[in-house]
Amino acid sequence: MPNSKSTLLEKIPAWSWLRHYNQDAFKSDLLSSFIVIAMLVPQGMAYAMVAGLPPVMGLYASIVPMIIYAMVGSSPTLSIGPVAIISMMTFATLNPLFEIGSPVYIQAACLLALLVGIISLFLGIFKFGFLIQLISHPVIKSFIIASALLIALGQLKFLFNVPLNANNVPEFLKSLFEYFSYIHMQSLFFGLSAILFLISVPKIFSHPTVRGLLNASVFLSRAVPLFLVVVSIALVYFLNLQNYGIKTVGIIPSGFPPLSMPFWTWELAIQLLPGAAMIAMISFVESLSIAQATALQQRSQLNSNQELIALGLANIGAGVTSAFPVTGSLSRTVVNADAGAKTPLAGVFSSLFIVVVSLYFTGFFSDLPLAVLAATIIVSIWKLVEFKPFFETWQYSKADGIAMWVTFFGVVCIDISTGLIIGIVSTFILMLWRISRPHIAVIGLIEGTHHFRNIQRYDVVTNPHILSIRVDENLTFLNANALKGFLINEVSQNHNLKHVVLNCSSISGIDLSSLEMLEDLNLELAKLNICLNLSEIKGPVMDNLQNSKLLAHLKGRVFLTHYEATQVLSKDVNIE
Amino acid sequence: MPNSKSTLLEKIPAWSWLRHYNQDAFKSDLLSSFIVIAMLVPQGMAYAMVAGLPPVMGLYASIVPMIIYAMVGSSPTLSIGPVAIISMMTFATLNPLFEIGSPVYIQAACLLALLVGIISLFLGIFKFGFLIQLISHPVIKSFIIASALLIALGQLKFLFNVPLNANNVPEFLKSLFEYFSYIHMQSLFFGLSAILFLISVPKIFSHPTVRGLLNASVFLSRAVPLFLVVVSIALVYFLNLQNYGIKTVGIIPSGFPPLSMPFWTWELAIQLLPGAAMIAMISFVESLSIAQATALQQRSQLNSNQELIALGLANIGAGVTSAFPVTGSLSRTVVNADAGAKTPLAGVFSSLFIVVVSLYFTGFFSDLPLAVLAATIIVSIWKLVEFKPFFETWQYSKADGIAMWVTFFGVVCIDISTGLIIGIVSTFILMLWRISRPHIAVIGLIEGTHHFRNIQRYDVVTNPHILSIRVDENLTFLNANALKGFLINEVSQNHNLKHVVLNCSSISGIDLSSLEMLEDLNLELAKLNICLNLSEIKGPVMDNLQNSKLLAHLKGRVFLTHYEATQVLSKDVNIE
Repeated sequence: MPNSKSTLLEKIPAWSWLRHYNQDAFKSDLLSSFIVIAMLVPQGMAYAMVAGLPPVMGLYASIVPMIIYAMVGSSPTLSIGPVAIISMMTFATLNPLFEIGSPVYIQAACLLALLVGIISLFLGIFKFGFLIQLISHPVIKSFIIASALLIALGQLKFLFNVPLNANNVPEFLKSLFEYFSYIHMQSLFFGLSAILFLISVPKIFSHPTVRGLLNASVFLSRAVPLFLVVVSIALVYFLNLQNYGIKTVGIIPSGFPPLSMPFWTWELAIQLLPGAAMIAMISFVESLSIAQATALQQRSQLNSNQELIALGLANIGAGVTSAFPVTGSLSRTVVNADAGAKTPLAGVFSSLFIVVVSLYFTGFFSDLPLAVLAATIIVSIWKLVEFKPFFETWQYSKADGIAMWVTFFGVVCIDISTGLIIGIVSTFILMLWRISRPHIAVIGLIEGTHHFRNIQRYDVVTNPHILSIRVDENLTFLNANALKGFLINEVSQNHNLKHVVLNCSSISGIDLSSLEMLEDLNLELAKLNICLNLSEIKGPVMDNLQNSKLLAHLKGRVFLTHYEATQVLSKDVNIE
Repeated sequence: MPNSKSTLLEKIPAWSWLRHYNQDAFKSDLLSSFIVIAMLVPQGMAYAMVAGLPPVMGLYASIVPMIIYAMVGSSPTLSIGPVAIISMMTFATLNPLFEIGSPVYIQAACLLALLVGIISLFLGIFKFGFLIQLISHPVIKSFIIASALLIALGQLKFLFNVPLNANNVPEFLKSLFEYFSYIHMQSLFFGLSAILFLISVPKIFSHPTVRGLLNASVFLSRAVPLFLVVVSIALVYFLNLQNYGIKTVGIIPSGFPPLSMPFWTWELAIQLLPGAAMIAMISFVESLSIAQATALQQRSQLNSNQELIALGLANIGAGVTSAFPVTGSLSRTVVNADAGAKTPLAGVFSSLFIVVVSLYFTGFFSDLPLAVLAATIIVSIWKLVEFKPFFETWQYSKADGIAMWVTFFGVVCIDISTGLIIGIVSTFILMLWRISRPHIAVIGLIEGTHHFRNIQRYDVVTNPHILSIRVDENLTFLNANALKGFLINEVSQNHNLKHVVLNCSSISGIDLSSLEMLEDLNLELAKLNICLNLSEIKGPVMDNLQNSKLLAHLKGRVFLTHYEATQVLSKDVNIE
């Protein structure tokens, strides 16, 4: 991390760990890269398929972005590359525009990665990292759950070998109904067997007795998908399963990923821009939480904009090496850290292994059945589909619960991008709604103390000539009318009123609309011979009020404490 | 106003004053209706012209809506009818769709009034009155100022007698440049003389010596526009000014306003809907402030939804009697109240006079020069164009100041509706921006007291093992990251830290996102052997936290007061 007298070299995060690199770290990094690679090869190819792209692009997406992040990113263990949700978003962006798998579709995927990179880089350089906060946790959670559901449904077309549409659930059901009688039973059998294998074998490895017998059981359970891939390729190859209609990956060109600028037209770039912006947002969300944990554990300052820049450069790297948008993968990062990765070099080693795979082993994967890849996706993604968070959230906060359901149904019933936007907008509306309905309480003195509490909750003392009010929200245009309406109704019910005291202890801001409301209220109350008083105004609010005419126009007074206000005003009232 | 044992009859506001009506009230009402009518006839015709409609429609708009409001509205003095801003909005809605003044344009204006009525009625019945609060005062102010500027500019085409375009200022300047050499000097002379007359004569009447001599000087000064109208008609008639190219109102059909449903197609209704919604919003803004003042002075409860219903019915009345959208006019309401109007019957009398005018006197107005009507509009509207509020607002609050300028330039440079929407959206963005950057302070004890204050503002005592933090904002997804980032940075700078105490005295709400942030923070800090503690949690927030697992998971403790927290934790730290 940069220190106070940082030179340019020291500003590059890689410098800090490269200086102290030693043999121990090298061993740990190499070992963990083995474990990660066993996950990455099938995952990379599978996620490329989720994005509607040739599986080899999943390998490409795991090479250059990883190396770039290792140089400029802040987390030593973050594993960057293809990720299910981002692949699904790539698919949702490109699918309405081009035919899946066509050359222009593939070019557009590279361009999309480049755009995501440029947007992230731009946001990072101009310190717009805070924009991430526009998406609330419930919306992200619900978005991930609903997207996972759509991704799983989208893979069923490979299991069933019929052209199902999984843009949203209604369309999926419609196409399923249409093609139901065409489901290819051999593919389905193959796929279901694969799913069974993927679910049961890791359970065996994680059983205590097996764990006791085998030292490497953790590694073996991570390698189950890779093992399945190898076994199924062998089956297809030796039993000639293609003859039974089992579809396979097909010929994969070998070699380095071609380094080239993606095909660029302004028209296309503008079409892809909204999708790219959302992908940039979500990929940052995914990476940031990992980076935050890292920063805290290292007791280092978190620079979220630096993280955005790293993510941006990684995606630009993806764009110019025939890959598609990437981000930090939480699952691979956890595996990487658990396996003992010490520095980002672990990620670099993974990348180098992938290079070896794409140079020499692509021919090997041509017999890999699509149904098996689909099965690996379904098994890994299905864990994310759970409904408990919806009910837990609802229990804690109705507003957050509503936002979750709105996001879920938006994603599931319309499409992934529209659903996300609807979810984000709904949180804003719910927040504005909450602000517009502040908690306003008439308060009274708890006898024997200086504390004032809600008269509806506590047994308190009040004076019929003095109305004490507390608002538990900053005063803004959204709630100025609510406070005025509350006071109008209180005044209409109390004909002996001489003083209204507004307790400002919970108010950290008064905007112009509410300031004018207070001015109006002061004037209107004065016409009825009622004085408006203020108490317990916070420092910054007082500073601000000094710039207004309210304090000069105020019929009543400003008191430091509410207790003082009621004491002084009670005397005034009694003298009259 | 409805009392506790209200029957259906007593729910109609008119019942309460009709029961007690007497001769005195009758006299006052009749007199004030005379004064209002002197304003209303020229204003009505002029505002119809602002809306791009035949002047007679301004008379129609002053009849039925007024009678309906008198029956169901809450304010006894509110004068409902054509209003400059609403007319301008009508023009802005219809102008892009149809040719000005064409039969379909006129029909669409009636349909627009009907839609405004239906929307208002709907919002009132379903108690959506609170929606009004979405528009902040600075935006309304700026919107009115900018609209007034556009209205004044729009009238110059009648003064210059060339087809100027005043949709926005750039287009106005372009068309002015284009037609500059075609300006009709006779019209301009006539118009400028009228403006001079309208400005100077009321000044004479309001001069103390004149006021002393003439009892009726107030009435006379109100009647100046009507007097000008009469004089200019006489001039045109006797001098045959039409021959010199002076354009006049032309033949006005006499008779009652035709009662008919406006031409309705769903396509047209949907086209007009956004405009209608905005007109409904602004017309409610204009009326509500008047109704609020009325309610407070009568010490009656304010029912803003009832007010929306009244406005809705009035606009439906306008829609079916060949009129255009109406609302409460602040200027005429003030005159009406000053003139001594006691009950809504004053408004009914005005309406009846207007009926007489439209039955027998329309022929009289056919020689009224358009330049004179334009002059009355310019003089009355120009008073609204002032820039002091922009600077005053800026001084009090930068955010409100920005919203004002954004609205102003939106209206002036794009168009009236887009400007309003931009203004409203900008206030939301600024509010979210403010929430996302909460005031967070490290606090310390002021020696000899139990008070904790910002260490940057006050000379306070702190303990190197205990970090005390206060956030002056509710915790939401918008600022959860900001607080976490702040803490990460504080922790990175302090290696002796054992306890973090979050003072919650300014927090009235914790949403799920920030709750999860606190959970994360608690866990991550625990890994560093730092305890997260909470102090001074408000009752409702505590109620909510009981529904979560945070309190159970918390490494530290919850304290009633911050002083107690620091006392107890200091002892803990010292024992260690």
